[in-house]
Amino acid sequence: MHETFLQQTLQLAVDNVDSGKGGPYGAVIVKDNQVIAASANKVTSTIDPTAHAEIMAIRAACKHLNDFRLAGCVLYTSCEPCPMCLGAIYWARLDKVYYACNRFDAAAAKFDDSFIYDEINLLPQLRSIPMLNISLPNAREPFEAWNQKIDKIPY
Amino acid sequence: MHETFLQQTLQLAVDNVDSGKGGPYGAVIVKDNQVIAASANKVTSTIDPTAHAEIMAIRAACKHLNDFRLAGCVLYTSCEPCPMCLGAIYWARLDKVYYACNRFDAAAAKFDDSFIYDEINLLPQLRSIPMLNISLPNAREPFEAWNQKIDKIPY
Repeated sequence: MHETFLQQTLQLAVDNVDSGKGGPYGAVIVKDNQVIAASANKVTSTIDPTAHAEIMAIRAACKHLNDFRLAGCVLYTSCEPCPMCLGAIYWARLDKVYYACNRFDAAAAKFDDSFIYDEINLLPQLRSIPMLNISLPNAREPFEAWNQKIDKIPY
Repeated sequence: MHETFLQQTLQLAVDNVDSGKGGPYGAVIVKDNQVIAASANKVTSTIDPTAHAEIMAIRAACKHLNDFRLAGCVLYTSCEPCPMCLGAIYWARLDKVYYACNRFDAAAAKFDDSFIYDEINLLPQLRSIPMLNISLPNAREPFEAWNQKIDKIPY
């Protein structure tokens, strides 16, 4: 069963390369053994660097279920999620992920997944894209407002 | 100048909590000293767990420039980017990031940023959301198709 869903992600990925709509990646999201969302990578055709297959499938599944949480759902993806997609998987609270290729296969095809994983463990200011903290006296005001808000919707 | 843009992100974040449209986060993207995109977090109001302020601002900036790369642009964000947003920053190829709060401030307000950073360094199969590799003989077909494609658009 896992293989069947992973084969679907590979077909999505191959078809996507053929059609020229984006990178060689596909993902499907399954709930109760049914595919509820599927997408290939759409970065170049939608001019959106966040339009990875997993992100697109997560957005579609949330729309389908009308819920920003995907508990009870499993993600199948043609390749190990990059850090962006890994983060999205946690925020969406999926149950589990199955993948076919890994970050090193992606690196061999000149994709940055493995490079970004390596960058994460550098000090923010030493990364190839430097991330610099500036200390401001009121920096925590948004969190204070959040903590005090009675009718907030946690996510 | 950096402080001015960061103050804008804090105002976006506080206003967002007040309006109830999402979490306590704001981001702006600046090119040639001009703000070209700005957003607060929209997870709950758009039912999209990927709708963090940084992701929304990146999408808007790409739309504005009609380019999936944001070289020459700087991201200002009210809080250190989570792993999802960090990944998006790399894929968008931004020049630099400035942030006010950090992942520990976010954790104190019960957000998972720091937790997700910790999860990344676990073996995939040992994460709280297990990520399991299944070996398939044709797993690399999408990458092979990509490598052979003459008119591909790299990103």
